[in-house]
Amino acid sequence: MIDFTTARDQIVAVGRWLDGKGWAPATSGNYSVRLDDHSFAVTVSGRHKGRLTPDDVMRVDAAGGSLDGKRPSAETALHLALYHTFPEAGAVLHSHSPAAVGLSRAVAGDGYPLAGHEMLKALPGIATHEISVTLPIVANSQDMAVIHNAIAPRLLAPGAIPAYLIHSHGLYGWGRDMAEAERVIEAVEWMIAAELAERSFR
Amino acid sequence: MIDFTTARDQIVAVGRWLDGKGWAPATSGNYSVRLDDHSFAVTVSGRHKGRLTPDDVMRVDAAGGSLDGKRPSAETALHLALYHTFPEAGAVLHSHSPAAVGLSRAVAGDGYPLAGHEMLKALPGIATHEISVTLPIVANSQDMAVIHNAIAPRLLAPGAIPAYLIHSHGLYGWGRDMAEAERVIEAVEWMIAAELAERSFR
Amino acid sequence: MIDFTTARDQIVAVGRWLDGKGWAPATSGNYSVRLDDHSFAVTVSGRHKGRLTPDDVMRVDAAGGSLDGKRPSAETALHLALYHTFPEAGAVLHSHSPAAVGLSRAVAGDGYPLAGHEMLKALPGIATHEISVTLPIVANSQDMAVIHNAIAPRLLAPGAIPAYLIHSHGLYGWGRDMAEAERVIEAVEWMIAAELAERSFR
Amino acid sequence: MIDFTTARDQIVAVGRWLDGKGWAPATSGNYSVRLDDHSFAVTVSGRHKGRLTPDDVMRVDAAGGSLDGKRPSAETALHLALYHTFPEAGAVLHSHSPAAVGLSRAVAGDGYPLAGHEMLKALPGIATHEISVTLPIVANSQDMAVIHNAIAPRLLAPGAIPAYLIHSHGLYGWGRDMAEAERVIEAVEWMIAAELAERSFR
Repeated sequence: MIDFTTARDQIVAVGRWLDGKGWAPATSGNYSVRLDDHSFAVTVSGRHKGRLTPDDVMRVDAAGGSLDGKRPSAETALHLALYHTFPEAGAVLHSHSPAAVGLSRAVAGDGYPLAGHEMLKALPGIATHEISVTLPIVANSQDMAVIHNAIAPRLLAPGAIPAYLIHSHGLYGWGRDMAEAERVIEAVEWMIAAELAERSFR
Repeated sequence: MIDFTTARDQIVAVGRWLDGKGWAPATSGNYSVRLDDHSFAVTVSGRHKGRLTPDDVMRVDAAGGSLDGKRPSAETALHLALYHTFPEAGAVLHSHSPAAVGLSRAVAGDGYPLAGHEMLKALPGIATHEISVTLPIVANSQDMAVIHNAIAPRLLAPGAIPAYLIHSHGLYGWGRDMAEAERVIEAVEWMIAAELAERSFR
Repeated sequence: MIDFTTARDQIVAVGRWLDGKGWAPATSGNYSVRLDDHSFAVTVSGRHKGRLTPDDVMRVDAAGGSLDGKRPSAETALHLALYHTFPEAGAVLHSHSPAAVGLSRAVAGDGYPLAGHEMLKALPGIATHEISVTLPIVANSQDMAVIHNAIAPRLLAPGAIPAYLIHSHGLYGWGRDMAEAERVIEAVEWMIAAELAERSFR
Repeated sequence: MIDFTTARDQIVAVGRWLDGKGWAPATSGNYSVRLDDHSFAVTVSGRHKGRLTPDDVMRVDAAGGSLDGKRPSAETALHLALYHTFPEAGAVLHSHSPAAVGLSRAVAGDGYPLAGHEMLKALPGIATHEISVTLPIVANSQDMAVIHNAIAPRLLAPGAIPAYLIHSHGLYGWGRDMAEAERVIEAVEWMIAAELAERSFR
């Protein structure tokens, strides 16, 4: 766990990185880091994530209350629910790629299988490509508690990966620290892109 | 509303941003800002929008007359008609992505539905994803008045979004200020890209 | 027409620009400018076009003979044939996009229609989108003269555009100067990308 | 062959280049250079290849033993097996594009034909496009020796190209030096992208 200044710089940098990939359009996305004083650094509401300044990162307590008078992103509640559910989580990212959202709209059912990819080994706890995991897909809702309550049991099931997709919305991914959360997001997005290429080649 | 120098810098910057995304090829595109003296800052004709210099932005009056002897983009008339129709509009952008133009050529009819996308909330006045809006598509014409007269009633209809697509041509989007206009363009383009991915996954 | 130093800088810059778009992979591509002393600035053989230095641009005479001891790109003969055929041409570009080459391999016949695109107006001499032009496709050959002799009559036909596609190889485009040649290449590549998106949306 | 400092700088640079293309996600990939003292410069394990520092490159001996106490990438054994098989190889790259992996998953059989592409001439020893080569595809395995033993005979066959694809995993390519290895990777990835566009145009 880290202090606010370090977390703030990580959040500004990850916004630039995700925007560079086209995964943070139009002020969408929100990013957070668990701090060593049990508060959280989160993005404020309404800023373009590719152009964050240090002033666009704020601190909230575990209940989502602002600790510095700024207004957090609307989805901060989903971040905090993930930190509550996974005490080992140190950073949460929420990205928006056209491919991931297109996938969520195209497939029926509440999940998409990712099987046989070497890239699965980029996910924490997976040491072989000879495996099939499910990227869970949950219905979107205006109510963050509805989303979290629907997805939480699946995230806690054996073999669950630290990522899920909200239908027509975007991808959540998390890790022990920002580097691991980035690795999870990049690996899942990459596998979705590879699946899309696979379908186009068929 | 803002002064010319600020507007000029915004226009130079937005050209670089749109070109970086591949949405401003081959001198296409034109951008404008409503100024606080009731004139307008607009791009001059014929420059590559990714390489604009301050000298490539000019001022016109409400009738499109040059206020500084430079020659405006041919489509300035469409910008001015939008400012006349929407007194609250402060900036207008016109982008050209392969996906948006491909969409306009592929679909029959005069509009494309955007439904259920969380990204819809990036559009001004939309607070839920549980909605379907229509991206209007209007026939292209050499006569800007023909285009505007054909599209204006649809832009003023209840539930209209601040964007429309010209068939085989490109996307118009606008907002209170440049930041909002950018958000509209980026959100609509992103949803088109997501719809394209959705079709490829099906 | 311009001097060698200016042409050389234009060629170095256009290589970076084309490589940034993914249209100059693996040392492919070659670029040239007609100089005011009736010689030509051309890229030397075998360099990565995204990493050209001034030393990677050389001068040849109208017959392709080296004027400075360096070795020109193998396809210099095609450039010189275009300059001979079109006395008004001042710059020639040869790019390699996956989409253009994929198109050349996918379609039967010796050309591809580009119709109704506003982007057609980026091509010199075209003032309306209400037109259909043909992007000629010529068979590839190891012999540059075979390629040029096969394509030249079509380039001189009424309504021809200043660009053609070599099957499984890449795109040639030219203009009065480097800016116009860039505009031709970017407009044609963009229309091919839009056609590809159109097909994916259907 | 070159010294460690030069090789290290080449490896740091190639990581940035491949990551910029989206071919080095989530700490995947590994790169190596044969040194003039019969040792090898290789990437250490677990770093993001787009953000390598000089400290992330290490030296191993021909058996893969660490010469400086750092831990090499897991796939170093495949690099060393290639250097052993091809004494003229000076650099080995391993990239991960969505298109190449999608291709490996989409096609049946143990190879994919690349035929008629001008881009084939970017591969060492190929002087004409009038040729068809096979990009071999080998099953993935947790055991590097299994992969190498399965692919080695095919790499030594007449007409083999210096590249192969591991199913659901990624592309290996090599050359006399880093520049040639980069050319091989970029040319093969480009041809895969062109084949993908070709299929979408059909």
